Amino acid sequence: MKIITLLTDFSLKDGYVAQIKGIISSITDARIIDITHDITPHNIREAAFILKNTVPYYPVGTVHMAVVDPGVGTDRKGLIITTKSQILVGPDNGILLPAARLLGDLTVYEIKNEEYMLKNVSNTFHGRDIFAPVSAHIVNGVSFEKIGEKTDKFADLDFGEPNISKKNITGKVIYFDHFGNIITNINGKQVKEVLDYNKKIKLCINNKQKEAVFVKSYGFAKKGQILATIGSSNYLEISINQDNAAEKLGLKDGDEIKILFN
Amino acid sequence: MKIITLLTDFSLKDGYVAQIKGIISSITDARIIDITHDITPHNIREAAFILKNTVPYYPVGTVHMAVVDPGVGTDRKGLIITTKSQILVGPDNGILLPAARLLGDLTVYEIKNEEYMLKNVSNTFHGRDIFAPVSAHIVNGVSFEKIGEKTDKFADLDFGEPNISKKNITGKVIYFDHFGNIITNINGKQVKEVLDYNKKIKLCINNKQKEAVFVKSYGFAKKGQILATIGSSNYLEISINQDNAAEKLGLKDGDEIKILFN
Amino acid sequence: MKIITLLTDFSLKDGYVAQIKGIISSITDARIIDITHDITPHNIREAAFILKNTVPYYPVGTVHMAVVDPGVGTDRKGLIITTKSQILVGPDNGILLPAARLLGDLTVYEIKNEEYMLKNVSNTFHGRDIFAPVSAHIVNGVSFEKIGEKTDKFADLDFGEPNISKKNITGKVIYFDHFGNIITNINGKQVKEVLDYNKKIKLCINNKQKEAVFVKSYGFAKKGQILATIGSSNYLEISINQDNAAEKLGLKDGDEIKILFN
Repeated sequence: MKIITLLTDFSLKDGYVAQIKGIISSITDARIIDITHDITPHNIREAAFILKNTVPYYPVGTVHMAVVDPGVGTDRKGLIITTKSQILVGPDNGILLPAARLLGDLTVYEIKNEEYMLKNVSNTFHGRDIFAPVSAHIVNGVSFEKIGEKTDKFADLDFGEPNISKKNITGKVIYFDHFGNIITNINGKQVKEVLDYNKKIKLCINNKQKEAVFVKSYGFAKKGQILATIGSSNYLEISINQDNAAEKLGLKDGDEIKILFN
Repeated sequence: MKIITLLTDFSLKDGYVAQIKGIISSITDARIIDITHDITPHNIREAAFILKNTVPYYPVGTVHMAVVDPGVGTDRKGLIITTKSQILVGPDNGILLPAARLLGDLTVYEIKNEEYMLKNVSNTFHGRDIFAPVSAHIVNGVSFEKIGEKTDKFADLDFGEPNISKKNITGKVIYFDHFGNIITNINGKQVKEVLDYNKKIKLCINNKQKEAVFVKSYGFAKKGQILATIGSSNYLEISINQDNAAEKLGLKDGDEIKILFN
Repeated sequence: MKIITLLTDFSLKDGYVAQIKGIISSITDARIIDITHDITPHNIREAAFILKNTVPYYPVGTVHMAVVDPGVGTDRKGLIITTKSQILVGPDNGILLPAARLLGDLTVYEIKNEEYMLKNVSNTFHGRDIFAPVSAHIVNGVSFEKIGEKTDKFADLDFGEPNISKKNITGKVIYFDHFGNIITNINGKQVKEVLDYNKKIKLCINNKQKEAVFVKSYGFAKKGQILATIGSSNYLEISINQDNAAEKLGLKDGDEIKILFN
């Protein structure tokens, strides 16, 4: 089965995503799956984080189109990135890079050939006029070389590295999910090497210490208790059982979190 | 046509639902239809109500996966429920039961066989790691006995029974829809036996009486007027024509509503 | 490929849209694409505007079902409108007309034949009980004459005409998109005949003048600067680069905007 996924900050409200799906459906019968269209407007990092976490669950040959594009209409490039198993399409602002590196063996093409774009490309909506038809032609088997040219100049983006020792861990907030879970850049596997489940820990947040517990899953903390757990994407998360940790703890994107446990 | 529906409190924002769709699309080409992902976080009753109202409109053989799962990662069971015509998959917390009883002839299986789960099951996201692949294998025709074992121990959930006489009706609020319509547990068919359209009624809400009218549809009341009508799922609804009754009348889930008409 | 699109004010929350998709999937294997379900409740103009902007991107034969329907259950008619290339289905309140006129060569049918409706039509949800099965039968090839009867009496709706001279342009606000862009009824092509990119302009909004710049795309203005540009649907838009113009400028639907440039 051929699949194209879509990830944008367009929201579903305005019909922009439906215009994209009309274009794609005019070119290919590939299944179209929404990753999300609720990215905070213009937030490239948020989009890159969600794309990276989602691609591992898709079959070989899937084409992922990701468009958060404050530079649309200027001279920023459009990219196709091929990897070991899947293909990524979107603007050259770093949005595709964390996912591409995770998939491995990347080759980057700049989109060039107007033959694979809409006839009248607008200045404000390349998601519809360039990236959608390009994605559809790729999933139909048109070769990358026909659509673009190899390049080794492109914008990059990463989420930084945490500091993990036998006494404490320092990382930073990279995402808040819909439940209010606070997701950090701290790798869960490394945490498990230094910390046991059900151990009491201290969180240093904005120069204040808070009691918490490191648990296997949310339900092992008391209702309302602050907890740390390894989330489903293998990052350490700070949560409150059946409550909204993001609201209660007052953290923001990029804030440092220090965890003391010895 | 094979169909899998999805009903969760994950929202579309975070890409969690897209991870589920990636897993399902790797196993089956069944059509995937979203019932909703906007359930109030952790609200099992709300999810159970929407699932029950939606299943009657789906064809024989549809697999409905419903996951609102505050107990994920603890020892709560995962269930498959077969009925006369369709199959339900989700956690053992009552979410599936109102729909299952409506469909009739239920048999309940506890999900057991790890062969039909993802290789590394996380502690926080069984929607993706267990329920999604199980649903996909079921729609592909794998037998229930291969995936699970019959059980007669499972959590139940219901919406209570209203009290209907020739002078008044007493029920309770079970849901607020997006238009602000207040949906009660009062069966519409029974209401029609005791009450005629266009009859003036009194609503007792929070110890106050309000004038209202029982009408065939919203448009038969004046703009701004309080009305009772039989909604599309055959429950008595309290509404305000072209306004938001939930906001204006200040009711909450579980509140009693008494209707006087003689 | 057969396609049915859906545009409603039902939101996805309540499962109403999923009921519609269940009905459609029981009748046809056509692909179902959501245009949007986030129309402001009861706002027919907003729905008509989005439908008009979306239909040009869909292939010949697509059936668009659009239901924003405050008059449901009263004696308002249900319509099928055929055009040069696509078919529109929905209530008789003007919602379909701007799209129909854009597509051209319209013929209007009133839906009559109960054979193509659900057995028990509710009074409050014709989207599910009438328009969904009618749309599904049309995409399956049932003739319009079997389902309805030609009519030349139907509600109309338009967005007004702007006033464009060599010194100034006067139009009005017809839509706010999710980014906060303010979309006017001013045709972009006509603007380009009287105004050059990067020209400084003055906006008269609520009797106040604001400095702005007419640019090719958002990214050509400074961050935070007010700009006018020709949006992706060929209307003049008022925006603020990487900010929310609708919030900052305090305009509302129908407000007049005057643009001075000489």
